Amino acid sequence: MNETATQWVYSFGANGSEGDSSMRNLLGGKGANLAEMAGIGLPVPPGFTITTEVCSWFYNNAKSYPQTLKAEVEAAVARIEAETGARFADPKNPLLVSVRSGARASMPGMMDTVLNLGLNDATAAGLAARADDTRFAYDSYRRFIQMYADVVMGVDHGLFEDALEEMKLRHGVFDDTGLTGDNLVALVDIYKDIVADESGEAFPQDPGDQLWGAVGAVFTSWMNARATTYRRLNNIPASWGTAVNVQAMVFGNMGDDCATGVAFTRDPSTGENIFYGEYLINAQGEDVVAGIRTPLPLTRTAAQAAETGDVSMEEAMPEVFVQLDTVRTQLEAHYADMQDLEFTVQQGKLYMLQTRSGKRTAAAALRMAVEMAEEGLISRDEALLRLDPVALDQLLHPTLDPDASKTVLTQGLPASPGAAAGEIVLSADRAEELAAGGKQVILVRLETSPEDIHGMHAAAGILTARGGMTSHAAVVARGMGRACVSGAGDLRFDETIGKVYIRDHELSEGDIITIDGGTGEVFSGSVKTIQPEMSGAFATVMAWADDTRRMAVRTNAETPADARTAVDFGAEGIGLCRTEHMFFDVDRIVAMREMIMAADSVGRESALAKLLPMQRRDFEELFTIMAGLPVTIRLLDPPLHEFLPHSADELAEVAAAAGITAETARQRSLKLSESNPMLGHRGCRLAVTYPEICRMQARAIFEAASNVAKGGAEAPVPEVMIPLAATAKELEICKAVIDQEAAAVAGETGISISYLVGTMVELPRAAICADDLAEQAEFFSFGTNDLTQTALGISRDDAGAFMHAYTDAEIYPVDPFVSIDVDGVGALVKMGAERGRSMRSDIKLGICGEHGGDPASITFFEKVGLDYVSCSPYRVPAARRAAAQAAVT
Amino acid sequence: MNETATQWVYSFGANGSEGDSSMRNLLGGKGANLAEMAGIGLPVPPGFTITTEVCSWFYNNAKSYPQTLKAEVEAAVARIEAETGARFADPKNPLLVSVRSGARASMPGMMDTVLNLGLNDATAAGLAARADDTRFAYDSYRRFIQMYADVVMGVDHGLFEDALEEMKLRHGVFDDTGLTGDNLVALVDIYKDIVADESGEAFPQDPGDQLWGAVGAVFTSWMNARATTYRRLNNIPASWGTAVNVQAMVFGNMGDDCATGVAFTRDPSTGENIFYGEYLINAQGEDVVAGIRTPLPLTRTAAQAAETGDVSMEEAMPEVFVQLDTVRTQLEAHYADMQDLEFTVQQGKLYMLQTRSGKRTAAAALRMAVEMAEEGLISRDEALLRLDPVALDQLLHPTLDPDASKTVLTQGLPASPGAAAGEIVLSADRAEELAAGGKQVILVRLETSPEDIHGMHAAAGILTARGGMTSHAAVVARGMGRACVSGAGDLRFDETIGKVYIRDHELSEGDIITIDGGTGEVFSGSVKTIQPEMSGAFATVMAWADDTRRMAVRTNAETPADARTAVDFGAEGIGLCRTEHMFFDVDRIVAMREMIMAADSVGRESALAKLLPMQRRDFEELFTIMAGLPVTIRLLDPPLHEFLPHSADELAEVAAAAGITAETARQRSLKLSESNPMLGHRGCRLAVTYPEICRMQARAIFEAASNVAKGGAEAPVPEVMIPLAATAKELEICKAVIDQEAAAVAGETGISISYLVGTMVELPRAAICADDLAEQAEFFSFGTNDLTQTALGISRDDAGAFMHAYTDAEIYPVDPFVSIDVDGVGALVKMGAERGRSMRSDIKLGICGEHGGDPASITFFEKVGLDYVSCSPYRVPAARRAAAQAAVT
Repeated sequence: MNETATQWVYSFGANGSEGDSSMRNLLGGKGANLAEMAGIGLPVPPGFTITTEVCSWFYNNAKSYPQTLKAEVEAAVARIEAETGARFADPKNPLLVSVRSGARASMPGMMDTVLNLGLNDATAAGLAARADDTRFAYDSYRRFIQMYADVVMGVDHGLFEDALEEMKLRHGVFDDTGLTGDNLVALVDIYKDIVADESGEAFPQDPGDQLWGAVGAVFTSWMNARATTYRRLNNIPASWGTAVNVQAMVFGNMGDDCATGVAFTRDPSTGENIFYGEYLINAQGEDVVAGIRTPLPLTRTAAQAAETGDVSMEEAMPEVFVQLDTVRTQLEAHYADMQDLEFTVQQGKLYMLQTRSGKRTAAAALRMAVEMAEEGLISRDEALLRLDPVALDQLLHPTLDPDASKTVLTQGLPASPGAAAGEIVLSADRAEELAAGGKQVILVRLETSPEDIHGMHAAAGILTARGGMTSHAAVVARGMGRACVSGAGDLRFDETIGKVYIRDHELSEGDIITIDGGTGEVFSGSVKTIQPEMSGAFATVMAWADDTRRMAVRTNAETPADARTAVDFGAEGIGLCRTEHMFFDVDRIVAMREMIMAADSVGRESALAKLLPMQRRDFEELFTIMAGLPVTIRLLDPPLHEFLPHSADELAEVAAAAGITAETARQRSLKLSESNPMLGHRGCRLAVTYPEICRMQARAIFEAASNVAKGGAEAPVPEVMIPLAATAKELEICKAVIDQEAAAVAGETGISISYLVGTMVELPRAAICADDLAEQAEFFSFGTNDLTQTALGISRDDAGAFMHAYTDAEIYPVDPFVSIDVDGVGALVKMGAERGRSMRSDIKLGICGEHGGDPASITFFEKVGLDYVSCSPYRVPAARRAAAQAAVT
Repeated sequence: MNETATQWVYSFGANGSEGDSSMRNLLGGKGANLAEMAGIGLPVPPGFTITTEVCSWFYNNAKSYPQTLKAEVEAAVARIEAETGARFADPKNPLLVSVRSGARASMPGMMDTVLNLGLNDATAAGLAARADDTRFAYDSYRRFIQMYADVVMGVDHGLFEDALEEMKLRHGVFDDTGLTGDNLVALVDIYKDIVADESGEAFPQDPGDQLWGAVGAVFTSWMNARATTYRRLNNIPASWGTAVNVQAMVFGNMGDDCATGVAFTRDPSTGENIFYGEYLINAQGEDVVAGIRTPLPLTRTAAQAAETGDVSMEEAMPEVFVQLDTVRTQLEAHYADMQDLEFTVQQGKLYMLQTRSGKRTAAAALRMAVEMAEEGLISRDEALLRLDPVALDQLLHPTLDPDASKTVLTQGLPASPGAAAGEIVLSADRAEELAAGGKQVILVRLETSPEDIHGMHAAAGILTARGGMTSHAAVVARGMGRACVSGAGDLRFDETIGKVYIRDHELSEGDIITIDGGTGEVFSGSVKTIQPEMSGAFATVMAWADDTRRMAVRTNAETPADARTAVDFGAEGIGLCRTEHMFFDVDRIVAMREMIMAADSVGRESALAKLLPMQRRDFEELFTIMAGLPVTIRLLDPPLHEFLPHSADELAEVAAAAGITAETARQRSLKLSESNPMLGHRGCRLAVTYPEICRMQARAIFEAASNVAKGGAEAPVPEVMIPLAATAKELEICKAVIDQEAAAVAGETGISISYLVGTMVELPRAAICADDLAEQAEFFSFGTNDLTQTALGISRDDAGAFMHAYTDAEIYPVDPFVSIDVDGVGALVKMGAERGRSMRSDIKLGICGEHGGDPASITFFEKVGLDYVSCSPYRVPAARRAAAQAAVT
């Protein structure tokens, strides 16, 4: 950067602006928008912005400034003086300015601000005379001294507050407003003494000195502890730096023809296209924020609705209001988005002090996007881009009433959205029992396992001590649409006496808690929740999304209920049916265990024969719901020991069923236990070692498909998925069994079912050797959960111990189980897709990991060119939107 | 293949050969070598080979033959008739032939053979007249009928044996030789009746019919059960097929001027360059093999050494012996390798019936390779290529006496070479106790863990029920040079009463067993072992290897004993020092546990302060032994819970040391337990979450290096290795701590130590993002154990349940933990090496997984261009050789 050739200062005002809103990185958000507003002719007090590049220079050069800065600032001050007619240090018409920070990203309250700069003994007296208001002038002066001394000179602000209290005591008044102008003149002298005593220097009287002191303080505050922490939490790089905005002061507190207020161009809560805001007569902006006086509604309609008898700005200052309402329309049209405004009225004249894109609720964002598109303000594509998919997801679930009072017990991970309150239960059986009796329950567990599924289904919400965003609890809860907070590390259990300890709180079964699966918070007692409402805007925007997106959206589902929910949410088939989830029912687990315990394939086949009709019925139901749509069925995947009996009773039961001794059953259990089950005897390894399992499942699929077709429904398209393959040979072995059964069933029924055989690409080797695998596989479904576990070497069940430290240290910008790690796991997906297509150009490519419901990941999958994403039923709408968004970016 | 244009039959004989030894795939090993021998003018009975392509044709065309085969066979028979003067079915001079199989790979005894083909009623009589020996002719005829009827016509050979017994009884003789010519003439008639009765057909009298029957039988036997099993066990594809060799018979049993024998051109047991073999006068080849008569030594020297008074062939048949000795020299020169020969002398004339490369012991292979290179018979490079590195590894360990009698109890995996006998002990403590009392013990465990190390060290051998070739037991045993059999799935334990059950055998502590870590076999009782002898040839070949290889060879070692052993075996530094192994000593584990249990970093630092001096001493010892050589030290890698206390006593002890309650200690233990520890809170994740651990280790390294340098020894070159990194950021964080400590220690001691900071590439993401990582890392060491676990998604501790099925089904040709999976894991190593070099061209690249000692893997690493391999001390010599071999191929 050339020190003397670079422009370091950008002016704005009625005579035109040197910057505009596109220069956010250079001028900060505030500065860029002030310049933009002034540039389009809105009434903005004149001022200038010292760029963020000066901040970088400042830190790179031992807190010094570029050589040419001083002259540029002096010229910019002169420009303000010319526009306002006021001058620095001119007692007759003193120029006062505010000095504020303004970074690229909003960092509210994190850095320092100095107001009323330019006051000194002479100009304070001049201001008093000019405004004919000694109190106003010296109150401003004493505030300026306190603020400046604190921020720039490091004098403890408590000293000034003590002096103020003493002054009030001396005069027997309780409020600051009780002090007279003379009292404040005296207080200013005391303040100046404090400054001299504490800093060893007199309070600076030269406005130029004051200005440079304030500018330096703002730049220095970029690195203060608060700002540094805020940046870390919000992923804002320190290198961005802050700009400094110097602007002529305007006063909303110079009388009853003065006012100040904030407004939104539409209702940020509902999204309704009304002017929404508050104002205060004869007040400063700080008063609105500080809540010392209750602000009044902006519009007549709002005032009437409030039924408080308050007078709206529309009524009190009709002319200025019309002017402000015009600004509202002008700004929304200009920015094509809902704006959050700050304004001040000084002696009947309107000044705009800030505009920015307004924060809004999920419901409001949806409504505004749809209405703005319908108004022609934005395009449909733009409307889709505007919607935050995480927020969209929340729309489908109950949320906490923001006005309810809450006591936070602890915070875990926001594992599945929605809020739920209920009685604590510590076991799945108990959850089912109480729910059957009409109780609302929260299932609280160290962690959940597939055997808890009935209890999770019965519960309104699930809270676990262990596990990350893709732990069993999280995945299953999202699939079921249950609220879930996982990995709440502060939980301790004493199950013998049915107690849970959360930090210092001791809770028993039956005590009521509330969880917010959208934030991860856990509250004591019952917090009021608000039920979701799907507005017409939802259907509208979903239809737009469907018109726009290229990728299909399927769902991960194995129960008829989930499948139906998903179809209602617009799923276009099943991308992942996890057949193992079908075996945990009470009437099936015994046969399943018998199969596992069998000494040989004859024993296994006899147990499998019992499972066949159940499994066939499962598929018949799914095929009927998904008539004509593709249904991807994954063959048995988890390590067999997940189905093992735990208690002695269960052991005896299965031993009896399998015709073996309890001791043999115990030994077999022991032999099946694994050190790292995630990398163990599971997936297609089961099919290779026990082909009869694969055979039974294939038969159930083809018999079910034939039965549904026979029943007259549109024939389903089964896609048989072989899990955890790493080699073409594994596929060849399993495919042979599947093809054999398909042919056998076709021979028996006379009905030939179209089907595909493919694999889940969830191991690095599978992605690397995808060309080989594609010789056998007719489709790939990327299993990015396991692919993340293996590529990164992280067990998602154990990641809780360090993932927090990892995201804090920006080792991974976000939890890679939540949003795909593009450089590592993403590279494997890309490699797998490319190599798969190189061997089989029409190979169908999908993704069925948890990332299938994550917008950032969906954007990546669009880029790689996958054919579909598959996610849990409740994430289908967000996925449809994200897929559309990805297609237009 | 063009049916009529292809040549299906290749003749050989004194008039020249159509084939040669390069045509092994087409003619089989036997046929190719017969053609070669005939081609270089050796005396080979004429014959022809029907190619392996006919076998393929046979199976692809419903067991029919190519159209032109018949004419080619007839022409080839005519060529034999022309050379020998004998003719099929000519009573005056009948042509007799043998019909034998001969595949590309040797499959001894697996397929069918027919001898003496051509005999019928007329030619038998003619042969009797011509040889003037009725007995010889009819004994040959009855043998032919029995063999042919059995092999070709499916008549039970027991019937012929019964008839023979009856004949002997009738004539009151005990041996076959007691029967006269006339007895045998009568027996032949009985045999022919049996054939007619059993098969419903007369025994074929036409030699042409006989020939086609025998050829069909040989081809059919390619698919018999024995051959199929043998092929499966030896990885021979069925598609190779067998050739059929038809050759004129010669007889070693026509009188005392006849003989038959087998010979090796050098001693296959010691490798000494002497003519080594056995012969029998007036006998058939079968007699030598069957052991009915004891064969006699070939040479005078051997006969004298035997002191049995036997007459050698050199003395008994001096002229033929000289001729045979010439053939020996000629064949060895021709094949440039030790040959295994079969010969027959018929009426004073020598015939060569087979030559092939001879099997040899590891010691013999070594000696021959060195001596042949010194003789100029082969090049040094060729000598290196000749040595089987697995065999070389065996040379360093005791082996079982091949002559000892053995009772096999079970078979596990050959996890660490060497044979060992000793008392069974079931715990590491007991092993140490008994070994201290001078007992030889075998530690028998379900599996081993780091806490068993002292017991493994005390034991002569280790036997485990679980775990694969790279389980903890296997890796540690190889490192220590202890014999180990792992994954012996038949073992069951009842530890309460100190019993082990192996299949039906019940064994107690104190019972003696023997294990062979080279084969995986377990024997009852004490089997005699032979101690290794390192001959001069060993040193010679190692020196050649060192001259030839490009890659350096380092060792994986952490104890001074291992480090010294490795240096003795030629290691050029330490490639992997696993610091966690240093913390299991009784005096250290408590401090280690205290560190883990500490509530905060202050507590951890106080415990680490106790460990620092111990760790520093460890490194001082290693640096002293490795003076001037690089020493790669891996920072603490395993999940902390591996160090956790198990018993209540241990829990109480550590709670006291850490100043916490036993209950808190229990809770903390529970919290540290993991679902998949392999993918858990370990590696650099420990350093990221607990930087004080990294800091202590770095300090210990630099303080130790300074102390050694101060002591005047050549300064060591520490290479600090950060384990399990997946991102550049992890390296950046850890490297900052290491660099800080290095600077701090340099400041305190005034000695500046050169060091490198690098990482272990053991996760797929690390290989994929190796360019990023190389920005931070000055070296990569590929940790192919973990890389295999993650890329293939296989836990090596759990692979036992299915790996056998996987290698059987050829899903992986060999266990990927033994030899690197080139297509998957290898692709990642290649990617990591290339991308690492693209960012940092001089990055040092090594490998320190178990594959560092595997020759096939080393060949791959040479191809990828790694700078060094590192392996356990006992594998260093084999690695040096393999690295050399890789460099010349």
